[in-house]
Amino acid sequence: MAFMIAQRAFIKVYLITMVEQHRGYGYQMLEDLRRDFKALGYAPPQSEIYRALHELVQQGILYRTKQLKGNDPKVDFQEIVLYHFTSDGEEKAKLYKKQVKTDLDRCLGMLNKAVSDNF
Amino acid sequence: MAFMIAQRAFIKVYLITMVEQHRGYGYQMLEDLRRDFKALGYAPPQSEIYRALHELVQQGILYRTKQLKGNDPKVDFQEIVLYHFTSDGEEKAKLYKKQVKTDLDRCLGMLNKAVSDNF
Repeated sequence: MAFMIAQRAFIKVYLITMVEQHRGYGYQMLEDLRRDFKALGYAPPQSEIYRALHELVQQGILYRTKQLKGNDPKVDFQEIVLYHFTSDGEEKAKLYKKQVKTDLDRCLGMLNKAVSDNF
Repeated sequence: MAFMIAQRAFIKVYLITMVEQHRGYGYQMLEDLRRDFKALGYAPPQSEIYRALHELVQQGILYRTKQLKGNDPKVDFQEIVLYHFTSDGEEKAKLYKKQVKTDLDRCLGMLNKAVSDNF
């Protein structure tokens, strides 16, 4: 058992939730995570987010599609990467989130205990 | 800024509190920490605890003394290592704890946010 929850697991849970909410745009997920945590002084590293997405694809939870950003390919060739659940991905994701929830609760217990024992 | 609080800092705060409470017995601190966290599924590694004590000595916060365990040295030669605050150690320790408290609060904020955002 690690001391605290792993950054990778923490990020994966957020990515799953974003896909659940149909917000599975590759680059936008990165931007959203950074914006949401800025006030808490945490900047999720880009490399961690891309590794987390890669793992979710490897685990058979997500798959990728690409679409052009603009409507006119002559004007805008930029591709957007989109993430979706595989056929049994949403179920697998729920199980994974459940495991991570247990670890989040364990960590909250340890940190709350440390505050009450030492301060 | 690291993702979560470092194990070393977490342990150092507990060791400082134990010395504040006049419970600065080397081996007993290790035993107490292990007992207190057993229910939470965390076993502070012995090596981490000894490195944390070493750092607190290096930082000029604590110093060590030794005493024999039994009253009769002919019967029991086992030495006990005791930790005490240096003359300005308690003040330095308070400052250190204050820094760690800030980080504990930051981590609690992140974990509570993750629970409310994803569950």
